[in-house]
Amino acid sequence: MIRSLFFEPGKPIRKDLPPQEFQKLIRNRRGILWVDFVAEPPDICLPILQGFGFHSLAIDDALLETHVPKLDDWGEYLYIVLNYMHAKQKKDDWNTTVDELDIFLGSNYIVTHHDYPVTAVDSTWNACDLDPRTLQDGPDHLLYKIADYLIADYMPIIEEIDEGINAIEDQVFDRPSPRTLERLFSLKRVLLAMRRILLPQREVLNKLARDPYKVIDPKDRIFFRDIYDHVVRLHDLNESLRDLVGGAQDTYLSVVNNRMNEIMKTLTIITVLFMPLTFLTGFFGMNFFEPLGQLKTWTTNPVFDLTMATIVILPIIMYFWMRRRTWI
Amino acid sequence: MIRSLFFEPGKPIRKDLPPQEFQKLIRNRRGILWVDFVAEPPDICLPILQGFGFHSLAIDDALLETHVPKLDDWGEYLYIVLNYMHAKQKKDDWNTTVDELDIFLGSNYIVTHHDYPVTAVDSTWNACDLDPRTLQDGPDHLLYKIADYLIADYMPIIEEIDEGINAIEDQVFDRPSPRTLERLFSLKRVLLAMRRILLPQREVLNKLARDPYKVIDPKDRIFFRDIYDHVVRLHDLNESLRDLVGGAQDTYLSVVNNRMNEIMKTLTIITVLFMPLTFLTGFFGMNFFEPLGQLKTWTTNPVFDLTMATIVILPIIMYFWMRRRTWI
Amino acid sequence: MIRSLFFEPGKPIRKDLPPQEFQKLIRNRRGILWVDFVAEPPDICLPILQGFGFHSLAIDDALLETHVPKLDDWGEYLYIVLNYMHAKQKKDDWNTTVDELDIFLGSNYIVTHHDYPVTAVDSTWNACDLDPRTLQDGPDHLLYKIADYLIADYMPIIEEIDEGINAIEDQVFDRPSPRTLERLFSLKRVLLAMRRILLPQREVLNKLARDPYKVIDPKDRIFFRDIYDHVVRLHDLNESLRDLVGGAQDTYLSVVNNRMNEIMKTLTIITVLFMPLTFLTGFFGMNFFEPLGQLKTWTTNPVFDLTMATIVILPIIMYFWMRRRTWI
Amino acid sequence: MIRSLFFEPGKPIRKDLPPQEFQKLIRNRRGILWVDFVAEPPDICLPILQGFGFHSLAIDDALLETHVPKLDDWGEYLYIVLNYMHAKQKKDDWNTTVDELDIFLGSNYIVTHHDYPVTAVDSTWNACDLDPRTLQDGPDHLLYKIADYLIADYMPIIEEIDEGINAIEDQVFDRPSPRTLERLFSLKRVLLAMRRILLPQREVLNKLARDPYKVIDPKDRIFFRDIYDHVVRLHDLNESLRDLVGGAQDTYLSVVNNRMNEIMKTLTIITVLFMPLTFLTGFFGMNFFEPLGQLKTWTTNPVFDLTMATIVILPIIMYFWMRRRTWI
Amino acid sequence: MIRSLFFEPGKPIRKDLPPQEFQKLIRNRRGILWVDFVAEPPDICLPILQGFGFHSLAIDDALLETHVPKLDDWGEYLYIVLNYMHAKQKKDDWNTTVDELDIFLGSNYIVTHHDYPVTAVDSTWNACDLDPRTLQDGPDHLLYKIADYLIADYMPIIEEIDEGINAIEDQVFDRPSPRTLERLFSLKRVLLAMRRILLPQREVLNKLARDPYKVIDPKDRIFFRDIYDHVVRLHDLNESLRDLVGGAQDTYLSVVNNRMNEIMKTLTIITVLFMPLTFLTGFFGMNFFEPLGQLKTWTTNPVFDLTMATIVILPIIMYFWMRRRTWI
Repeated sequence: MIRSLFFEPGKPIRKDLPPQEFQKLIRNRRGILWVDFVAEPPDICLPILQGFGFHSLAIDDALLETHVPKLDDWGEYLYIVLNYMHAKQKKDDWNTTVDELDIFLGSNYIVTHHDYPVTAVDSTWNACDLDPRTLQDGPDHLLYKIADYLIADYMPIIEEIDEGINAIEDQVFDRPSPRTLERLFSLKRVLLAMRRILLPQREVLNKLARDPYKVIDPKDRIFFRDIYDHVVRLHDLNESLRDLVGGAQDTYLSVVNNRMNEIMKTLTIITVLFMPLTFLTGFFGMNFFEPLGQLKTWTTNPVFDLTMATIVILPIIMYFWMRRRTWI
Repeated sequence: MIRSLFFEPGKPIRKDLPPQEFQKLIRNRRGILWVDFVAEPPDICLPILQGFGFHSLAIDDALLETHVPKLDDWGEYLYIVLNYMHAKQKKDDWNTTVDELDIFLGSNYIVTHHDYPVTAVDSTWNACDLDPRTLQDGPDHLLYKIADYLIADYMPIIEEIDEGINAIEDQVFDRPSPRTLERLFSLKRVLLAMRRILLPQREVLNKLARDPYKVIDPKDRIFFRDIYDHVVRLHDLNESLRDLVGGAQDTYLSVVNNRMNEIMKTLTIITVLFMPLTFLTGFFGMNFFEPLGQLKTWTTNPVFDLTMATIVILPIIMYFWMRRRTWI
Repeated sequence: MIRSLFFEPGKPIRKDLPPQEFQKLIRNRRGILWVDFVAEPPDICLPILQGFGFHSLAIDDALLETHVPKLDDWGEYLYIVLNYMHAKQKKDDWNTTVDELDIFLGSNYIVTHHDYPVTAVDSTWNACDLDPRTLQDGPDHLLYKIADYLIADYMPIIEEIDEGINAIEDQVFDRPSPRTLERLFSLKRVLLAMRRILLPQREVLNKLARDPYKVIDPKDRIFFRDIYDHVVRLHDLNESLRDLVGGAQDTYLSVVNNRMNEIMKTLTIITVLFMPLTFLTGFFGMNFFEPLGQLKTWTTNPVFDLTMATIVILPIIMYFWMRRRTWI
Repeated sequence: MIRSLFFEPGKPIRKDLPPQEFQKLIRNRRGILWVDFVAEPPDICLPILQGFGFHSLAIDDALLETHVPKLDDWGEYLYIVLNYMHAKQKKDDWNTTVDELDIFLGSNYIVTHHDYPVTAVDSTWNACDLDPRTLQDGPDHLLYKIADYLIADYMPIIEEIDEGINAIEDQVFDRPSPRTLERLFSLKRVLLAMRRILLPQREVLNKLARDPYKVIDPKDRIFFRDIYDHVVRLHDLNESLRDLVGGAQDTYLSVVNNRMNEIMKTLTIITVLFMPLTFLTGFFGMNFFEPLGQLKTWTTNPVFDLTMATIVILPIIMYFWMRRRTWI
Repeated sequence: MIRSLFFEPGKPIRKDLPPQEFQKLIRNRRGILWVDFVAEPPDICLPILQGFGFHSLAIDDALLETHVPKLDDWGEYLYIVLNYMHAKQKKDDWNTTVDELDIFLGSNYIVTHHDYPVTAVDSTWNACDLDPRTLQDGPDHLLYKIADYLIADYMPIIEEIDEGINAIEDQVFDRPSPRTLERLFSLKRVLLAMRRILLPQREVLNKLARDPYKVIDPKDRIFFRDIYDHVVRLHDLNESLRDLVGGAQDTYLSVVNNRMNEIMKTLTIITVLFMPLTFLTGFFGMNFFEPLGQLKTWTTNPVFDLTMATIVILPIIMYFWMRRRTWI
C-alpha cells in the first residue's frame, strides 16, 4: 500500500496523490509531502524512490531488509533506518521479531518505507489526518514524532519483561524447575535482542541531536535529544533487567544446588546409619551359629541384648558425630 | 507542598511567597529565590514551572520520574537530575528505592522538585532558615550544598553494607547456609543499584566542575570538583565492597563444595568398607551349608575363625589403602 | 596461472597479454589493466610484480600468506589484503579454511594475487569479459566489485550456521548428548574464526570509505561505505549467532544437569526407601530367634503382622516426607 | 609530631622551626622548607596549613583520610595524595592496610602529612639530614625522592606474594585442602587491593611526568617518568601474579574435582561389583529351600558350584566391562 | 663480554676496539659504531655507557632488568627495551623465560646490552661480519635487522605450541586425564606470557613506524611498519591459539563431566535394579516362615514361583521405565 499526504499552508490537505505528481510537489518549497510505503513490493517502490532522486545504494538498503539502525547523510536528504520490536510471551517462550523502518528525510518531504504496519507511523499519520497543523513544523518534526512513538513502544515490552522476572523470582525459591531456567534464558534473549537494536538506535538519535544536518532545523535538535535521553533510559532499564535475570539465574542455581546437596546428604546419612546395622544382622544370620553350628554361645540372650543395644546406640552415636560435623 | 524563600541582601528573608509573585521576583537580579516542590501533583507544578519560562521538554522530564541523573544546559538555566537512594536491611533482604531530585538552576533562583521529602534538601533549607547568609553565595552554592548533603547520604549505606559483609564473612566459614548466599546476592543487588546511579551522577558533577555554564560562577567550580572527588571515592568503595561480596561468594561456594566432598567421601568410605563384609555374611547365610546341606565343613570353627579374621582385617587393609590415596 | 585484461575506451578488450608488456601498458594513462595471479609460484610472480615498481616489503607480504586483512598506502598504489573463508560442515565438525587475496590497486591498473581460485574474482572477471563497460569505471570500481562479491560470500556460511544452531536447539531438549556439545563447540569455533577476519576487514573497508587515497575516486567512496555497512551487518549477525550458541550451550548444561539431578534423586529415594526395610528383614533373619533360639516370641504371628505393617507403612510415610520436602 | 627543615644555600640547615615562622620562611624565595606532620591531630594541623594559604577544600582532603591517589593543581601549589601499603602474612591470611600520604608542593616548600610513620618519608628526611645538598634540587626533587621510595616499597610485597604463590603451587598437587583455596583467595585480595591503588597512582605520576605545572621544573619531569615506568612495571607484575593465582585456583579446582571423580568411581565400582553378589547370596538365603522347604534340588552341590563360579566369574567379567569403558 | 664493530665507508671494518676510543669514534659522523655488551657486570658497563653521554635514568634501566618493552626518546638517541622469550617443553610443563635486550640507538652508533646471548643479535653481528655493506644503511637499519630476527624467533615457539595443542586435542576425547588439563594450563601460561610481552613490543614498533625520531631515517619507517605487521600477526596467532586452548579445556571438562555422569548413571541403575530384589530375598530369609514358624504357606511352591517371577520381571519393567526416561 502506498499512501501520501500533501500539505501547503493555507490550503486543504491533499491525500493519496498519484506517484507521478511527487516530483512536481517536492519542487514546491512551501509544501510538505509525506509518502508512506507499507508492505509494498520492491519493484513498485523502486521507480517512485528513484523519482525522488535518491542514490541507488540508499534505495537498495531501503528495499532490502538489513536490520541495522543507521543514519546516512546524503546532503539533500537523510537516509535513516530505525528498528522496532515485537515481543510476545507464548507460554514459557518469547516470540521476538525485529523489523525495520526506512526513512528518507528531505527539507520538505519525508518518505517512510516498512514491510509491516508500524503503530508509530500510523499514530503520526492519524495525528496529521486529524489536525493538519501537525505538519506545520516541517518533516523533521514528523520524524521526531515517529521516532518518539517508536521508542515509546519499547516501554510496554520492558514492563512485561519486568513482570515476568517478578513472577519467576517467586518461583525460584518455592518450586525451581528446569522450566524456570528456560524462562530466564528466554527473557535474557529478548533483553539481548532489545539491547542490540537500542545501541545503534541510540547512536542514530545522538547524531540527530548533535550533528548539523541540512534538513534538520537546529532548534529541533533538542527534541531528538529528548528521545535520545529516553533511549538512554531504556538502555539503562534493559541493563537493570539483565542484572535481575542474572541474579535470578544465580539464585536458581544456588537453590537447585542446595536441594541437590540436601538430597546427597540424606543419601549419605541413611547409608551411613544402616550399612553397619545391615552388616550386623547379616553377621548373625550366618550359618555358623545355628541351627547345628558349634557356636551356640553366640546366640544366647546376653549376646542378643548386646546386639540390640548396638543397633539402638550406634545410630545415636553416629547422629551426634554427624551433627558435630554440622551435616544435620 | 510548595515552599519558597526569597532573600535580598539587606532585607529580611521572605518565606512561602504566593506562586504568582515568582515571575516578578526573578526579574529582581539582586534577590535569590528558592522554590521547593515536595510531593506536589504535576498539574499544580506545571503552570508554576511554565511561569519560570522553562522549556516544555525540561518540565516534562521534571514531572515524570525518569531516574537517570543528567544535566541539560538550557542557556539561561540548567536542568539537573540527581538521584538519592534509600536502602534498608529487612532481615536477610534489602529494601532499596531510588528517587529523583529535579533541580532548575538559574542565575538568581533555584527550583527543586521531588516526590518524597529529601534530607539533603531539608538540611539546606534549614541552614538557610537559620542563617540567611547561607543564601548570599548565590543559587549555585545552594546547589553545591544540596549535592554535598545528597552524596554524603550514601556513606551510611556504604557503612551498613560493609558491616553486613563482615557479618557474612564470619558466617561463611562457620555455618554456611543458602541464606548466606541469599544475603550476598541481596548485598550485590544494592551495590549494583548504587553503582548504576553513582556513575551518571559522577558525570553530572564532572560537568559542573569542568564545563563553563552561564549560571555557575567559575570560582565555584572547585566545590563541585570536591563533590566529584567524593563520588569517585564512593564509587571506589562500592567497587571494593563488590569485590568483597564476590570473594565471600567464592569462599561460600568453596566451603559448601568442600563439605559436599567430605560427605561424599564418607558415603564412599562406608560403602567400600561394608559392602564386601555384607557380601561375606550373606555368603555364609546361604542355605547350602546348613541345616541339612551337604557342605558341613564350610561351617566348622576354623572357617568361622578365618571369616572373623577377614571381617576384622579387611577394613583395616582398606583403611590404609584409602589413606595412601589420601582420601582420609 | 596468470591472466590479464587490458581495456582502452573505444578499443576492443585485449586478453592474456605477455607479462613483458605490462610496464608499457600501465604507462598508458587512458587504459585499464587487470593482472590476476592464480596459484602461481612466487618465483614467477616476483619479477612481474617488481616490474610494476612495487616496494619489496609489499611484494613479500603478497607472496607469503600472512592472513591478516590490511591496507597499506604506498602513495602511487594501495596494497590491500582481504580474506575469504571456506566453511563446510562434515558430520559434526566444521572444516574451516581462511585464505588470502592480495590486491595492488593503482590509478589505472589492478593486480590480484591468490593461491586458490576465488569465486569473487572469477565473477568480476567474467562480468568484465561479458561486458567491457564494467571496466569503464576504473580499477577502484573493480576493487569494489571484488570486495562486494567477497563479502556476499560470507552470507551462505552464516545461513548454514544458523540452520545448524536451529537443528541443535531442538536436540538439546529432546536428546542432549556430548555430541550436541561438540557440535556447539565446533560452531563456536567457526563463528570465532569468522569474527577474527571480519573485524580487520571492516577496518580496511572503513579506511577505503573514509580516507582520501590518490588511487580512489572520492565519489566512489560511498560504494566502499556500502560494503562497510554489509560487513557491520555480518559482524552483527555473527554476534547474534554467538549469543545463540552460548544460549544453547547454557541450555544444554542445564538440561544435562537436570537429568543428573533426577538420576541422583532416584538413587537417593530408592536407597532411602529400601535400606531400612533391608535392615528389618536382616534383623529377623538373625539366628537368635530360630530355629533353636530362646526368643520364640519374636517370631510369633503378631510380630510378623507388625513387621509387615512397618514394611508397608514406612515407605508410605517416607514418600510423603520426601514429597513435603519437594523431592518428588 | 611536627618536624621541619629549612635550607638556604650557603647557610647551615635549620631544624624543627616554630610553626609561627613558616609563613615568613616561604616568602624567602631562595630557601627550601619541608614541614612533615606525623600522626598529628587535625586541630593542630589545621591552623598551620591555613597559614600556608592552602584552599580549605584541599586542607579538608588532607586531614580526612580519603585513600584515593589524586593530584589537584591549585596554581601556586599542587595537592597530591599518594597511597602506601602494608601487607603482612599472618598464617594463611594477609593483613593489608592502605594508608595515605598527603603532599602540598609549592615552588619553595613541601608539606607532607600522614597518620602513621612512612618509611619513604623517613628515608628522604634522613638523606636530607645527612647531606643538605639533597635539598639543593628543590622541593620537586624531594617529591621525586619520596615517591621513588614509596613505589620501591611495593617491591618486597610483590616478592613475598610471589613466594607465597610458589609455595601454594606445590601444595596444590600434593595435598590440596580448602586452606589452599583460602590462601589463594587471600593473595587475590592483596593483589586486588594493590592494583586498586596502583592504577590511580600511575595516573598521578603520569600527570607529573607529562603535564606542565608551575611548581615542577620541566627538566625534572623525566624523573617522574622514571617512577611512572616503575609503577607500570609493578602493575604488570601484579597482573602476572593475578594470572598465576588464577591458574593455581583453576589447578586446585581440577585436582580436587579429579579426586572427587576418583572417589565416586570407586563407590560405583564397589557397588556394581557387590550388589549382584549380595543379591545372589540373599537369594540362596531364602527359606524356600531349607531346612524343610520342598525345593531341595536348589541346594545340591552342583548348584553350589555354579553359584561359586558366578561369584568368582561375575566380578571378573564386570571388571573387564568397566575397563573397556575406561573406568579403571 | 664486550664486542664492538666500527665501519667507515671505504675503510676496512675494525673490530673489538678499546672502550676508551668509543667517545672519539662517535664524533666521526661518517662512521658507524656498534657496541654489544653480553652478560657484562653492571660496574664494567656503567662507565662505558656514561662515556656515550646517556642519561643516568636510561643507564639504570639498561643495567637493571626490568622486562617491560618500551621506547624512550632522549633526543640525540633512543633507548629501546625489547624482550625475547625462551620456551621449552619439559614433559608436561613448559619452561618459559623472558629476557631483555636494551638498545641505545644514536644517529651513528648502536649499543646493545643483554645478560644472555641473543640469537637475533648474533645473527645480525655475523651478517655484518660477513658483509660490511650490511652496516652501510646506518644504525637504524641494524635495529631493524635485530628486531626482525627477534620477532621471527617467536614463530617456532608458536608452532611448537600449535603442535602441542593438536596432540592434546586428540587425547581429550580418547583418554582425558588430569595431566591433559595440566598441559593445557601450562600452554595457556606460555601464551599469556607471550601475549604480555607482545603487546608492549607492538607499541614500541608502532612508535618506530609512526613517530618521527631524529635518529631514524623517515624512509626506514616502512621497515618497522613491516615488523609491526608481523607482531600484529603473532598477536593474532596467539589469540587463536588461546581460543583453541580454551576450546580444548571446555571439551575436556565436558568429556570428563560426561564420563562422570555415565558412571553415576550406572551406579544408580545397579542400585535401583538390585535394592528391591535384595529386599525381597531378605524378606523371605526372615525366621517367621521357617523352620518352625507358623507361616508355612509363605514358603510353598506357588509363592516361590511368584517370587521368581518378580525377580525376573521387576528388573525388566524397571529397565523399560528407565529407558522411557531416556536414562539408558
